[in-house]
Amino acid sequence: MPDTSSGRLYNFSAGPGALPVEVIQAVRAELPVYRKTGASVMEISHRSEEYISIEASARALLRRLMGLEEDWHILFLGGGASMQFHQVPLNFLTHSADYLVTGTWARKAIAEAAKLGHARKVASSEDANFSYIPVRDTWDLNPDSVYLHFTSNNTVYGTQFRESPKASVPLVCDASSDFLSRSIELNRYGLIYAGAQKNLGPAGATIILIKDNFLARRKSGLPTMLDYGTHTAKCFNTPPVFAVYVVEKVLRWLEDQGGIRAIEAVNSRKAALLYNTIDASGFYHGTAAPDSRSRMNVTFRLPNAELENQFVDEARDGGLLALKGHRSVGGIRASIYNACPFAAVLALVSFMKDFERRRG
Amino acid sequence: MPDTSSGRLYNFSAGPGALPVEVIQAVRAELPVYRKTGASVMEISHRSEEYISIEASARALLRRLMGLEEDWHILFLGGGASMQFHQVPLNFLTHSADYLVTGTWARKAIAEAAKLGHARKVASSEDANFSYIPVRDTWDLNPDSVYLHFTSNNTVYGTQFRESPKASVPLVCDASSDFLSRSIELNRYGLIYAGAQKNLGPAGATIILIKDNFLARRKSGLPTMLDYGTHTAKCFNTPPVFAVYVVEKVLRWLEDQGGIRAIEAVNSRKAALLYNTIDASGFYHGTAAPDSRSRMNVTFRLPNAELENQFVDEARDGGLLALKGHRSVGGIRASIYNACPFAAVLALVSFMKDFERRRG
Repeated sequence: MPDTSSGRLYNFSAGPGALPVEVIQAVRAELPVYRKTGASVMEISHRSEEYISIEASARALLRRLMGLEEDWHILFLGGGASMQFHQVPLNFLTHSADYLVTGTWARKAIAEAAKLGHARKVASSEDANFSYIPVRDTWDLNPDSVYLHFTSNNTVYGTQFRESPKASVPLVCDASSDFLSRSIELNRYGLIYAGAQKNLGPAGATIILIKDNFLARRKSGLPTMLDYGTHTAKCFNTPPVFAVYVVEKVLRWLEDQGGIRAIEAVNSRKAALLYNTIDASGFYHGTAAPDSRSRMNVTFRLPNAELENQFVDEARDGGLLALKGHRSVGGIRASIYNACPFAAVLALVSFMKDFERRRG
Repeated sequence: MPDTSSGRLYNFSAGPGALPVEVIQAVRAELPVYRKTGASVMEISHRSEEYISIEASARALLRRLMGLEEDWHILFLGGGASMQFHQVPLNFLTHSADYLVTGTWARKAIAEAAKLGHARKVASSEDANFSYIPVRDTWDLNPDSVYLHFTSNNTVYGTQFRESPKASVPLVCDASSDFLSRSIELNRYGLIYAGAQKNLGPAGATIILIKDNFLARRKSGLPTMLDYGTHTAKCFNTPPVFAVYVVEKVLRWLEDQGGIRAIEAVNSRKAALLYNTIDASGFYHGTAAPDSRSRMNVTFRLPNAELENQFVDEARDGGLLALKGHRSVGGIRASIYNACPFAAVLALVSFMKDFERRRG
């Protein structure tokens, strides 16, 4: 069980999700005054030296962590990943774009693109309630597509692409729920976007990475705020200052953990422990196809809904938060993002075994 | 001079601007754990009871403070006021819309509208570096316009509309820098938007008020995230949770101050004290036409740029922050939003008199 002396419990929220406790403590320590500014970080100009150096530090950390060369632009915008469902095709969809439809968010993304042009469904797992990632052999790829859009991790359904898709066109990825959780084949991508509120910081910032030669393909005459070029050229309008400030601390924390390879190893161990517990039991069963299982959101069912409700309530009483599954899948969902410590998963597994003994 | 025991100084930043110290302290007190949630407010779901009740409280406070009946929708979106320059005409601009061009932001607003349709310039003060608000007699209003857009306060130039414009069509107002600083003629408006980071909270949330009968006039087939109807219907995507949480506290603080009438009286006294000091001096001179002066951003010049730089630096050393004017006007700008206490203005006036004695 968690150390409850601080009142902080183990948080399995799917998003906004847990942040490292060190980050939260550092934020607290910089209130009511940020360093020598005479004000909190919420009250200083985004044109001030102090804020500019926070954002520069966040960019530098991200470049180091991901190995992003200078031909990658890094943006911190407001508006959420959902805005990207529109902004990506608005900027780039000319004749045709390909979409892999593997869940709720992917379906929303293709629907927005279809309002603007020809958005082709390359493959879909909707036939089985999005419980799997379609194998590559079945994808109907168009080599003339301007991009291939996919959702790397499906928060609702607990599925995840094993690796970056192979395609002859640039990948555009909604990485909202597994950004920085593992290394990726960067050279396959043109654009990556992620809402901060899962692996990276508080809600309110969207991180966008765009490769320069992909950016160059965008259309002209776009609305200023929705033109990626507006934001790669300069800091155009007030950014979500506080959210970026927290993101910078999370990135520093991630570097302190040993970077992406190190966190990827921990994430694999966390997921393996949970899936092994599920598979070893006749009581719990996973909802995602084994070859498509997510290392970020582990979804499983109990024999009936009543037991599931008891599970969630008793877990909550035992200090394990936010385990209720999404309404479209039901059951239990344990979101084990970067900031969820191994100890939290150990505590959950221990609770699961105990619950099964008592109720199974 | 401010009480510097806490390290907090008097903050005249144009935005992100000062927040009430009570709000910052309350935020600090709720870290690392928000009430009984076991996590900070940054780490809880936007579908949780706790967040839903924060947002509901913010709405209820805003309704009471402004006297908003149920036919007004209240939205808290990400993306910034600059996104509204596009979103407003995207939703509403059919045959023609009218724009009053009184500053940098107004010019950006009409430029975005012109990308989408016929945006008429009703009046402009660009001929005199936006130092005044054109008098109503000179406005070339179109009675068939779908709306009349104006910027109620011009942060950069220190000008402000004395009252809500009279027009036969609904007003659309960018109220980013004077929202909730004074009472307005609500029945003239169709839509009001404001970035939070001046009078209302941290950067990262945009408040949008839309009257139901105005909303009903919007176009169909809009991109989902940019359709106001998406957000009036339900909480569609993750809101900027932390920013809304702070906004709720600022609104509560404002109610504790006695509401809008009470803060309006304080704001008038603060502005009068500053403008009287400027006018009584042969050393300082205001840049805005006297009948157009802003009660939020007081802009003035000294005899030369060298003195202005000394003024800013010495003020900073004396605990008076962020007094440098915007580069397009130069000189000094004192932003005295709701959260800037009367004592801060007293301290500034005292410094101004002392500086004039020494350097005048």
